[in-house]
Amino acid sequence: MIIAEAAKSARKIELSPVERLHALVEADMTATDVLIHERMGSSVALIPDLTRHLIDSGGKRLRPLLTLAAAAACGHANGLHIKLAAAVEFIHTATLLHDDVVDASSLRRGKLAANIVWGNKPSILVGDFLLSRAFQLMVEAGNMRVLHILASASAVIAEGEVLQLRSANNLATTEEDYLTVVGAKTAALFAAAAEAGATIAHADATSISAFSSYGQNLGIAFQLVDDSLDYSGRQAQMGKSVGDDFREAKVTLPVILAYKRADDNARRFWQRTIHLGQQRDGDLQRAIAYVEHSGAIGDADDQAHRYARQACHALQPIPAGELKDALEAVAEFCVDRGY
Amino acid sequence: MIIAEAAKSARKIELSPVERLHALVEADMTATDVLIHERMGSSVALIPDLTRHLIDSGGKRLRPLLTLAAAAACGHANGLHIKLAAAVEFIHTATLLHDDVVDASSLRRGKLAANIVWGNKPSILVGDFLLSRAFQLMVEAGNMRVLHILASASAVIAEGEVLQLRSANNLATTEEDYLTVVGAKTAALFAAAAEAGATIAHADATSISAFSSYGQNLGIAFQLVDDSLDYSGRQAQMGKSVGDDFREAKVTLPVILAYKRADDNARRFWQRTIHLGQQRDGDLQRAIAYVEHSGAIGDADDQAHRYARQACHALQPIPAGELKDALEAVAEFCVDRGY
Repeated sequence: MIIAEAAKSARKIELSPVERLHALVEADMTATDVLIHERMGSSVALIPDLTRHLIDSGGKRLRPLLTLAAAAACGHANGLHIKLAAAVEFIHTATLLHDDVVDASSLRRGKLAANIVWGNKPSILVGDFLLSRAFQLMVEAGNMRVLHILASASAVIAEGEVLQLRSANNLATTEEDYLTVVGAKTAALFAAAAEAGATIAHADATSISAFSSYGQNLGIAFQLVDDSLDYSGRQAQMGKSVGDDFREAKVTLPVILAYKRADDNARRFWQRTIHLGQQRDGDLQRAIAYVEHSGAIGDADDQAHRYARQACHALQPIPAGELKDALEAVAEFCVDRGY
Repeated sequence: MIIAEAAKSARKIELSPVERLHALVEADMTATDVLIHERMGSSVALIPDLTRHLIDSGGKRLRPLLTLAAAAACGHANGLHIKLAAAVEFIHTATLLHDDVVDASSLRRGKLAANIVWGNKPSILVGDFLLSRAFQLMVEAGNMRVLHILASASAVIAEGEVLQLRSANNLATTEEDYLTVVGAKTAALFAAAAEAGATIAHADATSISAFSSYGQNLGIAFQLVDDSLDYSGRQAQMGKSVGDDFREAKVTLPVILAYKRADDNARRFWQRTIHLGQQRDGDLQRAIAYVEHSGAIGDADDQAHRYARQACHALQPIPAGELKDALEAVAEFCVDRGY
């Protein structure tokens, strides 16, 4: 018995916090995956073909994981949390499809992006299908409060995406503008995913609010790190194109901070490459050097750590236990990940 | 009094059936328009700007009109039918925005299409916003059956749009394929709009099913006429680009029928212009001539009239009255419209 416990604990050490959280809700996640594959089906074969390309490409299922973990931490949900977890992943997949069209991305999760393989038209329309399918699943869960949470999040995400367009090529974008976009386009779904899980498990108002706040802060931390990695030179390991944000002249936090601290040379560089969008060979390497030299990565990481700590802090009202431990570890892990 | 009645009746004669139906639910339609303008608002100014361009461009509001008329014919709905009517118009507007990106359209309702004025990116993302806003409004109406009806319709519409992609450049498209696409991409929303109106007014199952069938048949008739008009030479009067479907090499019923009846010359023409998509000056005029010569327009109109009659027939269980009369007249009018 003691040996078995020790072995279990040793195995635990080998798992990443996200894997540990997966393991804690393994049966639910398997059921979610089955439901996802079932409900992405359609008599129109292009729909499951294109969806499968993205759904089976090794995404971490972080958002549905939050739904399942919150539901598990708050009690039982009669299986309805499975429907919500699948809905959350469909909303996320729909936004990825539309993002990749909007950004003209060529890679997603280390594979050719769907817009490259099938073209923009199917990506737009299959995205619409998945968003609608998400709503069908939410309706099946039959809970008006949950419907309200997820429908609102979906609108906020779209607002964030539109707002983000304004920061392209725009060196006047402030840190505050940036955080507004991130809070909407990324964190709103993290927050809603966790809040919906707690709500469908009939948690009390304090717990629901705790999970919502955890998700919101985790989402911001997650995006801060994602945006830093685009300038950290380690991006290639993520299976994403390197320097995507730079090439699209998106003004993310590393650029905002680097531009603020730039000397005349660097200012002219950012104005040419971001404001005018005139980029040539070697510019990405120069951008990375300017960002690193400015200390922007370190500052962005500090901010990410602060949001991660706030995420953990938000969980205070949740009773101690393996799930809470794992959720806290996920928040810390997300800001330390090198991928 | 008699004079007033006579004046009223004279005015009635001047109104088109759609205008007559509008007049019968005028207060509700005004409330719907107010709600539409209120809920297309966002702190992200581009969202109302782009939406207003389309919403205020003189669309007939046919789909929300069906929701309001069905609700009015079936009793009271405590104002919730207003929310549903606005939701239906938002779903429709979202599909128009995405359609125009997918089809690279240049005109919509006689104005430059939003994708031309603002570009594809805002059109895609504002479409997502409006679809999400539609779901929020539906959730506010608080009726699970209605949510089920409209969420399902939204998924079916997207499936129809994806299916339609397969018929582009594809002369093997059959009449059956075509009707499947039309039933999904157009008629599903007409059906759901009417069904939702009856459902929110607590109509009995027979009436709900009558309105659903009315909407489905009306929607097919409507699209059949729309697709005929693209080859009828009268399209310019609609404020739409002339020959859109032809230029996009879409295989609609006029082409299916004309190709089936084509001689060798005409077959080679269709194979070059539609299958290979090689079009040159004068081809649209030739296409219109081939379509007219084949009798395809007359046959498509016959089919449209059959669906319009089925729409009227579906209303049999609905008690006689001004609303029913107007709905029947709308079905007949839609297939006779010269615009």
